[in-house]
Amino acid sequence: MRSLLLPLAAALLSSSAMAADSVAYSIVEGLTTEVGQRLAGTEADARARDWAVAHLKALGFANVHVEPFDMPVWVRGAETAEVVSPFPQKLVLAALGNSGATPEGGITAEIVAFSSLEALKAAPAEQVRGKIVFVTHRMVPTQDGSSYGYFGAIRRSGPAIASNKGATAILIRSIGTDHHRQPHTGVTGWIDGAHPIPAAALSVPDAEQLERILARGKPVTIHLTLTPRMTGTHGSGNVVAEVPGTDPAAGVVLIGGHLDSWDLGTGAIDDAAGVAITTAAAKHILDGPRPKRTIRLVWFGAEEPGGFGGAAYAKAHGTERHAMAAESDFGSGRVWQFRVSLADPKSPLVKDLTRVLEPLGVSPAEGEVEGGTDVGPMVLLGSPAMDLGQDGTHYFNIHHTADDTLDKVDPADLEQNVDAWTAMLRVVANSADPLARVPRKGG
Amino acid sequence: MRSLLLPLAAALLSSSAMAADSVAYSIVEGLTTEVGQRLAGTEADARARDWAVAHLKALGFANVHVEPFDMPVWVRGAETAEVVSPFPQKLVLAALGNSGATPEGGITAEIVAFSSLEALKAAPAEQVRGKIVFVTHRMVPTQDGSSYGYFGAIRRSGPAIASNKGATAILIRSIGTDHHRQPHTGVTGWIDGAHPIPAAALSVPDAEQLERILARGKPVTIHLTLTPRMTGTHGSGNVVAEVPGTDPAAGVVLIGGHLDSWDLGTGAIDDAAGVAITTAAAKHILDGPRPKRTIRLVWFGAEEPGGFGGAAYAKAHGTERHAMAAESDFGSGRVWQFRVSLADPKSPLVKDLTRVLEPLGVSPAEGEVEGGTDVGPMVLLGSPAMDLGQDGTHYFNIHHTADDTLDKVDPADLEQNVDAWTAMLRVVANSADPLARVPRKGG
Repeated sequence: MRSLLLPLAAALLSSSAMAADSVAYSIVEGLTTEVGQRLAGTEADARARDWAVAHLKALGFANVHVEPFDMPVWVRGAETAEVVSPFPQKLVLAALGNSGATPEGGITAEIVAFSSLEALKAAPAEQVRGKIVFVTHRMVPTQDGSSYGYFGAIRRSGPAIASNKGATAILIRSIGTDHHRQPHTGVTGWIDGAHPIPAAALSVPDAEQLERILARGKPVTIHLTLTPRMTGTHGSGNVVAEVPGTDPAAGVVLIGGHLDSWDLGTGAIDDAAGVAITTAAAKHILDGPRPKRTIRLVWFGAEEPGGFGGAAYAKAHGTERHAMAAESDFGSGRVWQFRVSLADPKSPLVKDLTRVLEPLGVSPAEGEVEGGTDVGPMVLLGSPAMDLGQDGTHYFNIHHTADDTLDKVDPADLEQNVDAWTAMLRVVANSADPLARVPRKGG
Repeated sequence: MRSLLLPLAAALLSSSAMAADSVAYSIVEGLTTEVGQRLAGTEADARARDWAVAHLKALGFANVHVEPFDMPVWVRGAETAEVVSPFPQKLVLAALGNSGATPEGGITAEIVAFSSLEALKAAPAEQVRGKIVFVTHRMVPTQDGSSYGYFGAIRRSGPAIASNKGATAILIRSIGTDHHRQPHTGVTGWIDGAHPIPAAALSVPDAEQLERILARGKPVTIHLTLTPRMTGTHGSGNVVAEVPGTDPAAGVVLIGGHLDSWDLGTGAIDDAAGVAITTAAAKHILDGPRPKRTIRLVWFGAEEPGGFGGAAYAKAHGTERHAMAAESDFGSGRVWQFRVSLADPKSPLVKDLTRVLEPLGVSPAEGEVEGGTDVGPMVLLGSPAMDLGQDGTHYFNIHHTADDTLDKVDPADLEQNVDAWTAMLRVVANSADPLARVPRKGG
């Protein structure tokens, strides 16, 4: 068998030779191949942490360790749906994280359809009670990903709103911009004390199919089976590694991405890319002159189900002085803009960052930096913060689907990210700006 | 509820208004929406025939009827696969048509990998016996779809070759050119008396994942569950409609596509598009001056599982005089070339066809016309034949997957096909060439 395999292996190695010396690509390739999906709090997540610790130690980082925390763990079950009438056919869907369950044999109910979250909010409860709510939308791609905030509210709060109006279940059009039979999962929240009902995303083609069926004007009945469950409290953790600085009093530069992924794909763009980019950049600093500030690299745990890793980090490290906080969690598209929040808006750091990032095609942008799910809690506590904004035009074609696999990562785009993060770290870790605490609104 | 639905319906109708007066698009939209998947020999296939008869009668065609036939029917069951070691993870796959089954609890075996069908053929049986064969390849898109012939052999004959060497099961890299987690099904045949073993296609990203895992050089063990089954003999049928000609002695012009689809998608490009294109073209002739020759439009049944409809047609109509046979079964990409096989290679018909097709961007090409699965049997019996060759650059991204849905059909491309077929029919149905029987090699 070996003699048959070796030519295959050789062919593969030569085809990826371009990326063979890339720290970043080797992390994305290794983590997605040797671990694959790594849903937070599961056995795969634990294997991912082991992989991370071994890999970060092998790269030579200091102080490599896991900071464990506990979290509630939701896991997917069976998930099927069929139009019963008027046109019998199967639909492709995926339960949302924290979805409630149907009985094992499923439920059958009529659809009540809404073209927006606002329309659902406005509907009287008697129109919804006992029915399966369907909410569709017209999300289109944007370079900065900003449409996710608006349309994503359908996933985040639609299920609770439907539940509170007495809906039996809810189906949403995937929060995605592709036309593949790949539903986009993602977490929902049972706000306002809502009872968890079965909640799932139809793939975009299936949502459009259901729209066409509804447009015929006849009552539409669906049989829906979703059997996810909460499995109780389990352990997860943040994996931490450092590039020690020469001046411990100058504050920590916190960077990272998240290690966990949704369970459908292998988490290549979300977020093996982010941990890979920030690790490769930190490795460049590690291999060069020692920086003034310590760079703390965190592969955050349990971002997807609700930011448990970011919250645990802030709880453990919130009183330490942070000079900067920045995360990479928007795929592997090229960095095209940056934002920075500093105590001193006239700091020379802004010009220094512009000087090193501009040659990479990255221009400064206005607007507040919120920092994302993982470093956001530190930003709320007053840490200076940066966004290295990536091109997300194609991100929501893939985001939270089974299609989030290695082949979606362009090695050249990944390296541009590494170059931008390396340039940023060199400047920030050595800046003469004291990088003092930023007064936050109301904080 | 109606008040909520109507704005949605209105929005949908206005967005597809461009195509609202298109016979072809309305067939693709209607058949894929109101029937969906229509696996030959199943209840959905029967509903599709009812839909076809009603639709063809409503369009005003003559002699609309079903010509029934019986066929063996294979149906999909459970299908899952997991890498057990060295890197536990699920793989996405779909059984091939006519696949054998594993026990309900699945099988666990080691993988033996081959980079081509030739490599599998050359392997001694002792390397394969008791193992799960994996055959990969490097199919890339071609405009004329010609790479399908070569690479498709892995699906058509790989399983029988593996079975005859004692393999437990076979997994192939999907015969496709995309990078989505959508396996490409398709029929396989148990040639040379091979015993049916479990046979499935991995999606392209999953096949590449398995290649990477194998490239690590450790033994790879898979747990595989496939529970498809043969359900016995069931009825299917060809749906026939005609545009009557003025000269019954001038021979029939046979055109069509196939009504059945694989069970994963809704059969939009394969082959609602083909029946829609040929029907819309025939409708243009029906609405114009009566042609000399009768145009016989057939929505063939049971093409996918093995060309049962085409064989049934030839058995029923093989002795009738056919002046031309042509089918549309390569998606909805634009027609870019044509080929014609005539008894008289110097017939003025070739120039006439070139004159009407050239303005549509269609140029004449050399090469024999085989006619495809449905009209191929009539071509073998000596019918003159034509290919209106479509651009298939993107066809094998979608072919035989769950992604074969309405959104993949570009209405403008579809109309260019209708224009080409209409132009062809006007010329052929009225040509002064007697369109005599073509002597076939050995026939």
